[in-house]
Amino acid sequence: MKILIINGPNLNLLGVREPGIYGKESMDSYLPRLRGCYPDIDIEYFQSNVEGELINKMQEVGFSYDGIVLNAGAYTHTSIAILDCIRSLRTPVVEVHISNVNDREEYRRHSMIGPGCKGTIQGFGLDSYRLAIEALLGQR
Amino acid sequence: MKILIINGPNLNLLGVREPGIYGKESMDSYLPRLRGCYPDIDIEYFQSNVEGELINKMQEVGFSYDGIVLNAGAYTHTSIAILDCIRSLRTPVVEVHISNVNDREEYRRHSMIGPGCKGTIQGFGLDSYRLAIEALLGQR
Amino acid sequence: MKILIINGPNLNLLGVREPGIYGKESMDSYLPRLRGCYPDIDIEYFQSNVEGELINKMQEVGFSYDGIVLNAGAYTHTSIAILDCIRSLRTPVVEVHISNVNDREEYRRHSMIGPGCKGTIQGFGLDSYRLAIEALLGQR
Amino acid sequence: MKILIINGPNLNLLGVREPGIYGKESMDSYLPRLRGCYPDIDIEYFQSNVEGELINKMQEVGFSYDGIVLNAGAYTHTSIAILDCIRSLRTPVVEVHISNVNDREEYRRHSMIGPGCKGTIQGFGLDSYRLAIEALLGQR
Amino acid sequence: MKILIINGPNLNLLGVREPGIYGKESMDSYLPRLRGCYPDIDIEYFQSNVEGELINKMQEVGFSYDGIVLNAGAYTHTSIAILDCIRSLRTPVVEVHISNVNDREEYRRHSMIGPGCKGTIQGFGLDSYRLAIEALLGQR
Amino acid sequence: MKILIINGPNLNLLGVREPGIYGKESMDSYLPRLRGCYPDIDIEYFQSNVEGELINKMQEVGFSYDGIVLNAGAYTHTSIAILDCIRSLRTPVVEVHISNVNDREEYRRHSMIGPGCKGTIQGFGLDSYRLAIEALLGQR
Amino acid sequence: MKILIINGPNLNLLGVREPGIYGKESMDSYLPRLRGCYPDIDIEYFQSNVEGELINKMQEVGFSYDGIVLNAGAYTHTSIAILDCIRSLRTPVVEVHISNVNDREEYRRHSMIGPGCKGTIQGFGLDSYRLAIEALLGQR
Amino acid sequence: MKILIINGPNLNLLGVREPGIYGKESMDSYLPRLRGCYPDIDIEYFQSNVEGELINKMQEVGFSYDGIVLNAGAYTHTSIAILDCIRSLRTPVVEVHISNVNDREEYRRHSMIGPGCKGTIQGFGLDSYRLAIEALLGQR
Amino acid sequence: MKILIINGPNLNLLGVREPGIYGKESMDSYLPRLRGCYPDIDIEYFQSNVEGELINKMQEVGFSYDGIVLNAGAYTHTSIAILDCIRSLRTPVVEVHISNVNDREEYRRHSMIGPGCKGTIQGFGLDSYRLAIEALLGQR
Amino acid sequence: MKILIINGPNLNLLGVREPGIYGKESMDSYLPRLRGCYPDIDIEYFQSNVEGELINKMQEVGFSYDGIVLNAGAYTHTSIAILDCIRSLRTPVVEVHISNVNDREEYRRHSMIGPGCKGTIQGFGLDSYRLAIEALLGQR
Amino acid sequence: MKILIINGPNLNLLGVREPGIYGKESMDSYLPRLRGCYPDIDIEYFQSNVEGELINKMQEVGFSYDGIVLNAGAYTHTSIAILDCIRSLRTPVVEVHISNVNDREEYRRHSMIGPGCKGTIQGFGLDSYRLAIEALLGQR
Amino acid sequence: MKILIINGPNLNLLGVREPGIYGKESMDSYLPRLRGCYPDIDIEYFQSNVEGELINKMQEVGFSYDGIVLNAGAYTHTSIAILDCIRSLRTPVVEVHISNVNDREEYRRHSMIGPGCKGTIQGFGLDSYRLAIEALLGQR
Repeated sequence: MKILIINGPNLNLLGVREPGIYGKESMDSYLPRLRGCYPDIDIEYFQSNVEGELINKMQEVGFSYDGIVLNAGAYTHTSIAILDCIRSLRTPVVEVHISNVNDREEYRRHSMIGPGCKGTIQGFGLDSYRLAIEALLGQR
Repeated sequence: MKILIINGPNLNLLGVREPGIYGKESMDSYLPRLRGCYPDIDIEYFQSNVEGELINKMQEVGFSYDGIVLNAGAYTHTSIAILDCIRSLRTPVVEVHISNVNDREEYRRHSMIGPGCKGTIQGFGLDSYRLAIEALLGQR
Repeated sequence: MKILIINGPNLNLLGVREPGIYGKESMDSYLPRLRGCYPDIDIEYFQSNVEGELINKMQEVGFSYDGIVLNAGAYTHTSIAILDCIRSLRTPVVEVHISNVNDREEYRRHSMIGPGCKGTIQGFGLDSYRLAIEALLGQR
Repeated sequence: MKILIINGPNLNLLGVREPGIYGKESMDSYLPRLRGCYPDIDIEYFQSNVEGELINKMQEVGFSYDGIVLNAGAYTHTSIAILDCIRSLRTPVVEVHISNVNDREEYRRHSMIGPGCKGTIQGFGLDSYRLAIEALLGQR
Repeated sequence: MKILIINGPNLNLLGVREPGIYGKESMDSYLPRLRGCYPDIDIEYFQSNVEGELINKMQEVGFSYDGIVLNAGAYTHTSIAILDCIRSLRTPVVEVHISNVNDREEYRRHSMIGPGCKGTIQGFGLDSYRLAIEALLGQR
Repeated sequence: MKILIINGPNLNLLGVREPGIYGKESMDSYLPRLRGCYPDIDIEYFQSNVEGELINKMQEVGFSYDGIVLNAGAYTHTSIAILDCIRSLRTPVVEVHISNVNDREEYRRHSMIGPGCKGTIQGFGLDSYRLAIEALLGQR
Repeated sequence: MKILIINGPNLNLLGVREPGIYGKESMDSYLPRLRGCYPDIDIEYFQSNVEGELINKMQEVGFSYDGIVLNAGAYTHTSIAILDCIRSLRTPVVEVHISNVNDREEYRRHSMIGPGCKGTIQGFGLDSYRLAIEALLGQR
Repeated sequence: MKILIINGPNLNLLGVREPGIYGKESMDSYLPRLRGCYPDIDIEYFQSNVEGELINKMQEVGFSYDGIVLNAGAYTHTSIAILDCIRSLRTPVVEVHISNVNDREEYRRHSMIGPGCKGTIQGFGLDSYRLAIEALLGQR
Repeated sequence: MKILIINGPNLNLLGVREPGIYGKESMDSYLPRLRGCYPDIDIEYFQSNVEGELINKMQEVGFSYDGIVLNAGAYTHTSIAILDCIRSLRTPVVEVHISNVNDREEYRRHSMIGPGCKGTIQGFGLDSYRLAIEALLGQR
Repeated sequence: MKILIINGPNLNLLGVREPGIYGKESMDSYLPRLRGCYPDIDIEYFQSNVEGELINKMQEVGFSYDGIVLNAGAYTHTSIAILDCIRSLRTPVVEVHISNVNDREEYRRHSMIGPGCKGTIQGFGLDSYRLAIEALLGQR
Repeated sequence: MKILIINGPNLNLLGVREPGIYGKESMDSYLPRLRGCYPDIDIEYFQSNVEGELINKMQEVGFSYDGIVLNAGAYTHTSIAILDCIRSLRTPVVEVHISNVNDREEYRRHSMIGPGCKGTIQGFGLDSYRLAIEALLGQR
Repeated sequence: MKILIINGPNLNLLGVREPGIYGKESMDSYLPRLRGCYPDIDIEYFQSNVEGELINKMQEVGFSYDGIVLNAGAYTHTSIAILDCIRSLRTPVVEVHISNVNDREEYRRHSMIGPGCKGTIQGFGLDSYRLAIEALLGQR
């Protein structure tokens, strides 16, 4: 089973960026722990600040992988292009957010990409990624 | 460890009500399976169609239980009273939806209660309830 | 043939409440006259000021009765929960209003429950209830 | 007793036009049946696609007839001119729709002409016309 | 002279709930002091989290008491049903809020029930209730 | 000098229609008095309830007459077509209203045709027509 | 007969200010000509850039003069205080604008003061003032 | 093959009307050139300023012709009635505009009739009509 | 103890201005009665129609007086400058309205200055001023 | 003559992506056919999912080519940057869409880039590209 | 060279007023330092809380001075009158704010006066005034 | 001291692009002059049309440089991702615009990135860049 975790803009700064909101742990430190929980799953990781590169990557794996865990960061709220991409794929996509976006600025409460996703998990810190993998497993 | 699952209006009709959206399984059939997954957790269940009774129940357990899994149904989108209640409690509340509310009517895309909750899980059918319990466990 | 008339909040005050808008006759005085017009129909009556109790009642009869005549009063304009309930039932529901709600405050011009109902009858005073029964008969 | 039924734009295509929404019966086939139900009432019929001609007709009969049953079709949602006309008349006007306009596009949920009418009947197919005549009789 | 104080949802948690906003004193501790200020007035107290029960209570006393002091809590901002109820009564109703709702979330700045009330008093902590009784006395 | 007065929908009912708003005098009675004030001006009059006929008439005279006094009635607020027509003409057009439309329903406060007109005169009863002719004279 | 012409902010710059919109003539040059047209009327003139001074002036004359011609300039679109003032007076007020405000920025198309005035005259350059006096004469 | 070109309000003034936007050529001069390009197609032409007459004409040919090229002019942006008509027909309709309506006033950027049409061609001057015929040919 | 009552625009006309809304008593007649109720408090009074003079006055006393009772009249709804002023002061400000502004025009339902005030009292006629002084006393 | 066709995000999936909306043919299969129709025109093709790369490409050719046919996909509705780019170029740009975007989600009905383009062609499937080339030829 | 610095409402309280936002230094202390930086420029200073006095002052110097540095305070967001004034002048006006108004309440993010100014400088504390003078020098 | 100037989309066309708005000078010609003014500051320059590359660059220098001068061009108005990036950095960012964006299209009046920046300078042509460096110096 192959799953791709995709992180969008500024999520390469996790641990450095606004730790009051996003916590102090980086993806580099978190990913081995996550992979340790699911030894039978091949968990790949990709990050880019470029909207179109997120689309390129999703198109690349979206017809063969078993699941995509997508934290599209700020593009979540504006990108029709990512929504269109998700709708074009065969692989199910789970939308993930580290913080509870419902409790932040008004413009973060609307997800443009949500209608194309299988479902959403948000607010549980880095554990949101694990729950997304659980969710993909639960859908099988 | 004690967790209360609360279901709001019309969720007593699960399995009967619009099965294309909500699936064919009832809570009665699902709950034993869920409890079987977490033998060490005391999982209680409460349902009401009355907004104020949901508040009564949450006030009752919200200072002693370890978590509340709340599917507030249609009240999710309009109830400031439930939001106020959640904010008054010590017990963390996880917002849950069976369907992907982002892919339905526009008025279901805004959660009035979300800002008070720990986080949200939506779109994974009845498995959303299990993921919410996972999320509560992950926060400990 | 069994039909349930449901009246929502403050409609127990008919005849007393703002008679310029709602008229001077109470339901108690009107119902016998209405039943007299349809001797072959079993016309039940239920009123509550509690949104959730309206839902409870509709769930109770909504899989066996032949029609529900629903004047949801003020909940008409805000209750997604009643809309969800109506959509869950097998029994057809006719939305009724005593006054012409289009000629009153702006917030009364939008019916949240309307999309789930068979149709709407409004503006004809208490005679709206009789027309709703006529409408149910006409649909057979 | 004289009643005029007025149909607005595209309602001359009833039976041909989008039968999933408007049904398969034409006014030509329906009117004799309707007149048969009310042998004592003189039921006239007028249809036009031109907004101003609907106004002309209503002005013509609106001070002498006993009732107007008006299905203004698409002009329902935009015509201040028809609203003004209705308000100028002595004859009561009942607004009628074949389909449940509350369950269609958002722009069909607002009736511009409603505030001038006695009341509204919508959603009961062609039977809406009969109910409107019933309503006019009930107001006497 | 008889006055009823009605508290809406979550106000049973006064003293416990968000004390930074609502203060640390409970109604139980406050009421005797208030009654002590007005020995000649019969001050009753009622609280419910259920919207419809607030309506039930107001209907019960609203034709015989001399005044109602209403803190409708979160229902203040959304309940057309409570507004309709107030308008149906003969007893004057004074709207009360403990906090200055104008200095909180945007959705708390609009009072749906205000147009039916005699007037509003907000922002003075529990003293708002005393001022409401003063206001009722001043209107005599 | 030739001037055309154009009246839009329902203005043929002047004197009959809502006299509290529009007064009790008809155009038939007013026009001779108006013509008497301006014996050197050829004042024609045209009325139609049909939006397109108003356009037809304006196109007919709009390249040769010295002025058009236009009371477009309800079409004032919605007709882009009449605005386009006015902008196509060489003859200046003065917008006129009998009542003070700023003091009526919100939807009457916006003039769609205003940006194409020379200016607007409203609120002075039938005298608004005379003032419009004065205005056209003043522009020479 | 006594009439006061009031000009609001920046109208003291007439002739200097944006002549493409407001023309090249100043009030100083225009007023004698205007007074010459109405030798029997006492036409006073007042200008201020201060909103409150416009109100002071209107209160001063608004119970004894026969008419006020008010060009409130930019305050037209925002001043509830001037609207309240107009409504407090006995003297009728005519709203005047030099330019056709309907053909300028969107925020100039809404008159906050209009609902209190007798009527409006706009778009005829300085001649708008003469027409306003004509309008006051016509209302006698 | 039979195609009808329909022009809406004010398009009879092409060549005269605002030539900076609509160009200097009239339909009379353009049509023979257009017909010359498609000698095998029977290209009819109809123009009216009356919304309802456009509907009448479309109903007349809309079940037998091979295509309708519709420039509804100003009615494009407001007419639900024309949209309903287009949806009732069997003949495909192509929406056409001479100017680039996206680069004009905001209210011209929304097409009410677009959802019923096959497609849209706009901005190419009179050549837009030829392209619409090309588009109809391309769909065969 | 020193308290300043400030009245904004048009409130110098109390007793004369729209008595159906504001009552028939002037401040001149009311103030002695009010001062009589609180012999130990130095109650000053200031009125101005000029927004900036209200600010000047509040700055003058706002660091030394014990309370300001502010009826900002029409400026209540639009003045960010008065809000900024209130926030700059040390003296607490109580917002007061004579009428129930919630039951009037929509634009009177929003208080721009409210977020800076201690609280609001509205709807009790001139008695609102006394209640504001009570409120200031209650806060000590 | 040189023309560049530019396709935006997800249009590399044509034929695979939502074929009910976009059809089953890929650009690879369509382009040779299109080039065959215009043997004298050099038709280049470029696709990217990255907004900025679309801009880079347009800047590269936008001062020397004879036309750009741009299907900006989802960026059509949000990209001010692409609009700015189009306005900076000398080469005319024709906006193209495969589907009738007017008949899809509301957010697809507004083109941000349209005001900078020569015109728009939408709804004719892949034939829209040919029509765009026709349009460029027609403008010469 | 002569430059006028104008400060609007409440800016006379600089150093006292909300020092967390506006800093602790007063204009009295800052101005000598600023003048010291530009010994060759005559820097005048004016402050008023009255909107109209700001206009009076700008009209007074706006045809002879070399620049106006305007911090209109709260009037920035609402005053069409100040915008009109700026547009009437020959002297260029630079808009200045001490705080970063983009990072405060939503209603402070819109500048009504900005379209008339040469440019804007905001967010740099009192140094914003120096930068504005730099900007005026840079434009020469 | 090290400062990075970042230019967003289409700003590589400065001098070529819409010179009426952006002027005729290119960055290549301007930068040496600017560096000449600040010989002690290391002024780097970066331009990209790709939103994500702007973010990449800012992340690269944003923890070590002394200031970033950012003209994000069209992304200014829509990019939450750039706002998030700015908030993640330690280096202060000054927002810059060449033109006065307040005097252009409505959608250019809102800066999405402004709340994260230190301040804004706009409207002074290329001199805006120099003023931004001045501003950074003034903040030390």
